[in-house]
Amino acid sequence: MRILFFCLTIVTIVSCNKPQAETPKPEQHAFAIAIHAGAGALKKGSYTPEEEALYHAKLKEAAQVGYDMLKRGDSATQVVVAVIKILEDSPLFNAGKGSVISNDGHIRMDASIMNGKTLDAGSINNVQTIKNPITAAKAVMEKSKYIMFTGAGAEAFAREQGIEFIDPSYFYTPRQVARWKEDKTATDEKTIHYVDSMLALQNGTTAWLPYELSLGTVGCAVKDKYGNLAAGTSTGGLMHKKFDRVGDSPVIGAGTYAYNKTCAISCTGTGEDFIKTVAAKTVSDMMEFKGMSLDEATHNMIHVRFKEITGDGGMVAVDANGQVSWQYNSDGMFRAFVNESGEITTAIY
Amino acid sequence: MRILFFCLTIVTIVSCNKPQAETPKPEQHAFAIAIHAGAGALKKGSYTPEEEALYHAKLKEAAQVGYDMLKRGDSATQVVVAVIKILEDSPLFNAGKGSVISNDGHIRMDASIMNGKTLDAGSINNVQTIKNPITAAKAVMEKSKYIMFTGAGAEAFAREQGIEFIDPSYFYTPRQVARWKEDKTATDEKTIHYVDSMLALQNGTTAWLPYELSLGTVGCAVKDKYGNLAAGTSTGGLMHKKFDRVGDSPVIGAGTYAYNKTCAISCTGTGEDFIKTVAAKTVSDMMEFKGMSLDEATHNMIHVRFKEITGDGGMVAVDANGQVSWQYNSDGMFRAFVNESGEITTAIY
Repeated sequence: MRILFFCLTIVTIVSCNKPQAETPKPEQHAFAIAIHAGAGALKKGSYTPEEEALYHAKLKEAAQVGYDMLKRGDSATQVVVAVIKILEDSPLFNAGKGSVISNDGHIRMDASIMNGKTLDAGSINNVQTIKNPITAAKAVMEKSKYIMFTGAGAEAFAREQGIEFIDPSYFYTPRQVARWKEDKTATDEKTIHYVDSMLALQNGTTAWLPYELSLGTVGCAVKDKYGNLAAGTSTGGLMHKKFDRVGDSPVIGAGTYAYNKTCAISCTGTGEDFIKTVAAKTVSDMMEFKGMSLDEATHNMIHVRFKEITGDGGMVAVDANGQVSWQYNSDGMFRAFVNESGEITTAIY
Repeated sequence: MRILFFCLTIVTIVSCNKPQAETPKPEQHAFAIAIHAGAGALKKGSYTPEEEALYHAKLKEAAQVGYDMLKRGDSATQVVVAVIKILEDSPLFNAGKGSVISNDGHIRMDASIMNGKTLDAGSINNVQTIKNPITAAKAVMEKSKYIMFTGAGAEAFAREQGIEFIDPSYFYTPRQVARWKEDKTATDEKTIHYVDSMLALQNGTTAWLPYELSLGTVGCAVKDKYGNLAAGTSTGGLMHKKFDRVGDSPVIGAGTYAYNKTCAISCTGTGEDFIKTVAAKTVSDMMEFKGMSLDEATHNMIHVRFKEITGDGGMVAVDANGQVSWQYNSDGMFRAFVNESGEITTAIY
């Protein structure tokens, strides 16, 4: 672990010297994956070296699984699901296990996936007992002629499709419960008791981590061997959210988009900023209609257009040539990247 | 009424001679409104002259109210809400009263609105007891920092904001109940009894109309005196829908978009086709990034890009110059248009 951490730190330091130019140089790749696990106020020093190493290791694990799958010929959509499942299963991120908690004490999750070859997409929101929301989104895409199912309806569909369900207590982690309680909008005693009881049902194996991180949506963009693109995103949304609020993650065009002619994109940040600018589709359109490169388009979106609306967040993307791009205007963004060389890069700041 | 119908028929016939070129000629307008009330298999002869006259009259009423408001200086977003409310209140369309019925016998409605000056937007879906869903969408836009609320959460927010609620039986109409029963996916006796009991609570004043129409989403795009654009859309979704399915109407970028630099758009048709192409935002981006006129961009979207995905539907739009455009690839689309001249055009086929 120490050796791994040391190697990853070097990559991080090297990439941090040129914060705006850190995206890999333009080059074609037979296949590639770009992963994010949230952008936000990730100032250096927020985490201890040991904690940082945990994040790097989990991102590397996800990238390695995706790489192995792509190398053996799995499809972009299969890889999107496999990568995101690993991040959903980890309590380190705000998606699946580790999701933030709504104001009423319940956990509600959103996810989406899109196939760049067919433009088919699947999206669910406000689900509470689906272990891996991204698997349900893929089922909507592949097993229904619709794209977007919500709440109890989405869960009913997932049940028909044999998607794995789990007791809602599974998603509660000490870190998120502590953050939920710290927020002064915490509600009545009954709700607090409910949240405590959910956490108590966990058996204590959940690692405690600092809770500075307020955004930790996960997602990835993939190009496979066959030249097909796909993207997916999964999130627990906003801490103390109300009114079954939905952000950009399950909105096709905003938080997720994939189109073989241009690129695949997954976003993270203040969801409303991505919805009002339809951020992912705008990047695709700047490439298609204005002839921008992937890097020019993502840079324009996050550092020019977002400046006009004081937008906040970041995105990872892969284009039809396997070129990878990531951009963010926050202090940091958990991210990883790998192409057919097999060399995995992970970074936070 | 006969005279009115005669005049409107002339407009319709004239415009039908050039089905692709029917959009008004490019010209600047101080203000303008484009309204649609659904595109679909509207073959000539589906309606009797008397029935057609009812549709023309309701579209004209909505356009007249919008015109009067714009003339006296009301804002684009105010006009969007006022126009859509009139259509929601009519049993002629699939939005508000007259909405289609879900497979489980309940009525679930979606709506969205967007302000082209600020890019602020509001969106709700799967609401069951809000009399005018478009008013709730506007409240989300103006009274919260979020954009998209769903289901019971959206209703809870609307209640806090003093939005008008109504008994769910209000939305049931003989036409839609008959169509719901005709569909062979009609469910168990208990559900049928529920639907019958909802309809029985109506006092018989609801006009019976033929039920050939399968799509009747309503929406409008507006440019006001101050040069600001806005768009909104409202729908009951799909007959016999399941799993709290959401179409394009409440998805910003897909069914609704407004941006002062380009245009305001509202769409209708097979929602998934508009979501996967992010149709409204794509039109805006073809104008912004490719320099297309409004009419070129809407035409490209509906008659070129939709052909590639066998997409189905139509859209109405207004650009920053007050130029209006409408396009559809179905047999017909209920629509109306008015500019500062005050001359209202309505058409179906």
